[in-house]
Amino acid sequence: MLTYDFENKGKQSLYEYLYNCIKKDILSGKIKAGEKLPSKREMARNHNISVITVENAYAQLIVEGYIFTQEKKGYFASEISEQYMNADLYDKMHTKNHCIKPEHSLHDKIGRNQGINKNRDWLVDFNSNHIMYDSFPFATWSRIMRRTLLDKENSFLVSPAPNGVWELREAIANHLSQFRGMSINVNNIIVGAGTEYLYSIIVQLLGNDSVIAVEDPGYQKISKVYESNGIKCLHLPIDQSGIRTEALVGKKIDAVHISPSHHFPTGRVMPVSRRQHLLNWARENHGFIIEDDYDSEFRFSGRPIPAMAGMDSNHVIYMNTFSKTLAPSIRIAYMVLPDELMEKYRKRLNFYSGTVSSFEQYTLANFILEGYYERHINRMRNYYRDYRNTIISAIKQSPIDSKVTIEEDNAGLHFILGINKEIDDEKFKQILRNHNINISSVSDYCYNVLEEFNHKFIINYSAVTKDKLTKALEIMDNALK
Amino acid sequence: MLTYDFENKGKQSLYEYLYNCIKKDILSGKIKAGEKLPSKREMARNHNISVITVENAYAQLIVEGYIFTQEKKGYFASEISEQYMNADLYDKMHTKNHCIKPEHSLHDKIGRNQGINKNRDWLVDFNSNHIMYDSFPFATWSRIMRRTLLDKENSFLVSPAPNGVWELREAIANHLSQFRGMSINVNNIIVGAGTEYLYSIIVQLLGNDSVIAVEDPGYQKISKVYESNGIKCLHLPIDQSGIRTEALVGKKIDAVHISPSHHFPTGRVMPVSRRQHLLNWARENHGFIIEDDYDSEFRFSGRPIPAMAGMDSNHVIYMNTFSKTLAPSIRIAYMVLPDELMEKYRKRLNFYSGTVSSFEQYTLANFILEGYYERHINRMRNYYRDYRNTIISAIKQSPIDSKVTIEEDNAGLHFILGINKEIDDEKFKQILRNHNINISSVSDYCYNVLEEFNHKFIINYSAVTKDKLTKALEIMDNALK
Repeated sequence: MLTYDFENKGKQSLYEYLYNCIKKDILSGKIKAGEKLPSKREMARNHNISVITVENAYAQLIVEGYIFTQEKKGYFASEISEQYMNADLYDKMHTKNHCIKPEHSLHDKIGRNQGINKNRDWLVDFNSNHIMYDSFPFATWSRIMRRTLLDKENSFLVSPAPNGVWELREAIANHLSQFRGMSINVNNIIVGAGTEYLYSIIVQLLGNDSVIAVEDPGYQKISKVYESNGIKCLHLPIDQSGIRTEALVGKKIDAVHISPSHHFPTGRVMPVSRRQHLLNWARENHGFIIEDDYDSEFRFSGRPIPAMAGMDSNHVIYMNTFSKTLAPSIRIAYMVLPDELMEKYRKRLNFYSGTVSSFEQYTLANFILEGYYERHINRMRNYYRDYRNTIISAIKQSPIDSKVTIEEDNAGLHFILGINKEIDDEKFKQILRNHNINISSVSDYCYNVLEEFNHKFIINYSAVTKDKLTKALEIMDNALK
Repeated sequence: MLTYDFENKGKQSLYEYLYNCIKKDILSGKIKAGEKLPSKREMARNHNISVITVENAYAQLIVEGYIFTQEKKGYFASEISEQYMNADLYDKMHTKNHCIKPEHSLHDKIGRNQGINKNRDWLVDFNSNHIMYDSFPFATWSRIMRRTLLDKENSFLVSPAPNGVWELREAIANHLSQFRGMSINVNNIIVGAGTEYLYSIIVQLLGNDSVIAVEDPGYQKISKVYESNGIKCLHLPIDQSGIRTEALVGKKIDAVHISPSHHFPTGRVMPVSRRQHLLNWARENHGFIIEDDYDSEFRFSGRPIPAMAGMDSNHVIYMNTFSKTLAPSIRIAYMVLPDELMEKYRKRLNFYSGTVSSFEQYTLANFILEGYYERHINRMRNYYRDYRNTIISAIKQSPIDSKVTIEEDNAGLHFILGINKEIDDEKFKQILRNHNINISSVSDYCYNVLEEFNHKFIINYSAVTKDKLTKALEIMDNALK
């Protein structure tokens, strides 16, 4: 029987401590692959903790792929090798990631975001994930901006460093350490005007004759940017765990671009075993993993999924953006390069001028360092969680409920609505469009025809008001009759 | 005898009117190639205007290549075909480009820019063209920024258009119309985070297998960016007029990247006949001219040299940046695409996200529209003109004067100091470096060994104080003994 000493938990919450103990034991082999774990009740009784606590720890271990569940049989340890795991690192994670109360209640916000997407006056636009009108902390940003303008007057007169100003890179490293448990060398961070610009830097580092594997389905823009820069992309179908390592074998592939913590659009999380397989492939083939961590901030239950870059910083290019978390008008993204690529960057690409105004870089650096960024993310996370729940309840209470399946794992600004019967996806979308409802299907994001992803539709919920959703659900229900 | 009716001059100055009249007559063939023009005195007497006025008009016609002078023989019309010239367009030029008094006197500024280039504590750094400490209009910029933050709060929530926000593109089009006499379609402007980013867009438009001809000597970064993006560059030696059209013939070249109004580093201006030859080449070979207009704002006498894009907008990609005129920390550049390439951009690259924060775009748009940009440029132009004269006088009054030749045509933030005897350029630079003087030679910017450019050194004067210059000149004089 597993017994852990909760006296040693330190500042961790009960559930975090339990999660870390079990993970360590699985990684160290103390718990063997296939071994049955105690039931939630047993585990709770044994440690004098609540069942909920155990449930949370188990849930997190499942979503990260350390354990799996078999209906009516219980919980079992997955098959995992420990070679890349750094348990110490994980221990340091997220201890500062406290949530605070959102400044505005949910009801203040609903119904305020009309008219932002002007392309067409949709009744409901499930393709838009514009953030809410009053979500951006203008007052704070503006105050820091004014102060930065005074403090950093001199910085106006010098060109920003090609990889970004030191203060911002340091703030990013701190943030990644606290929020993602990553231990980052500030010198390996490159700040750029959006992730797409950074992709072009990756192309220049890997070489124009490189081949990059991307996920199918996936965010089409990624392969568009690569291909426009002369790169060949292989669109590899994903399974429940993401890109299969077997699909890489025997092919000339230089890098694999993935979103392991939240695949777009399916929302699937890559379990730790698949991550290890991919890292093995990278090691054996001198390949790189491009880890696109685009919305890791918006995981609504449990801990954020650890980043692959934390497992093997030599083979993973970590990438994230502030445009998604702060405001789409702010064009600041960053990547963390492995030493080998950073060395190449220094030797071959250091001639570039920076792409982000230093003034905005300093403003963002202060915004992060003074804790406003963390607070903003926590506020938005709580807000989106509540809003998502409202939207999902509305679907569950509507007559359409029996005809659909909601696929979601409590993360991100969209979820998948699966239709439980054979329909013509294109016709369904057209009917909705005729009723002024804009919606995309997962198959819109497929490069190859993949049957598995038929009859699944993407619900970007953040810009949808509840009233209009009710109308939209009625229309959808009629279309399915 | 040429006689022009000065009653028709409208709002133009006397010299502008005379310049336009003669140019029109040369373009129309009324004045034939090789025809002798009246002497300055004759022309002045005949029109009852001052000799200085005629001198200014002739000087401008010479620098643009419409006429040439033969010592002791007089002024003659150059051989020019009129096919690309749009005399009407030129008439509209620059009527609003009045100079205003600089806000600060020259003496306020000298000696304030120490310590900005921290790489090494040079006594004098002739490689640095950092702008002066108090040259940026902080108060105005900051006021507009605050107002923009209030006015444009909504714009924070939407991604900026890939090619830039409309307001900024409109402001740029207005500016180009007033300052460069160019008639621009706002829809053909693309705003991006620096010219280097825009080069990468050009590469994507022309295709990765393109060949781009660049100037030798030239600004090395240009070919570095192209080559890093997979493009082949041909480094073509320039003559007094720039890249020779003959050097293009028979080669697969897709575009020619030049700075016709002020070549770097020689400062040479491409005369109108060479411009026509290059445009002919572009027309016949479906090639493009990339017109890098990097410091056209800083021409200190006469009118700005007209842009090639004004001669043939179908074959010229016009490009300029605000980083050089406003502040290096502001990363905003733009290009104007010919319709054909803009069509391609819309079809193939419209998926890109914008690279400049919309907030900065709106701030700059207001800064331009409210006249502050024009005023700033005029102030800086006057300031640099005075400062340049101070520096050149100092050289002329120093003992080094007899050993050097200053090559300058009253434009830009640098000029060339030619050494009148055979020296070892590398050794000379090393001696200066040993005395804490940083300097580059023109040959540093040569791709091929070009004898013609030996013993020429680049003086970036904007960051040099007069006191230190005097010391530096002493050291240089000793090194030449």
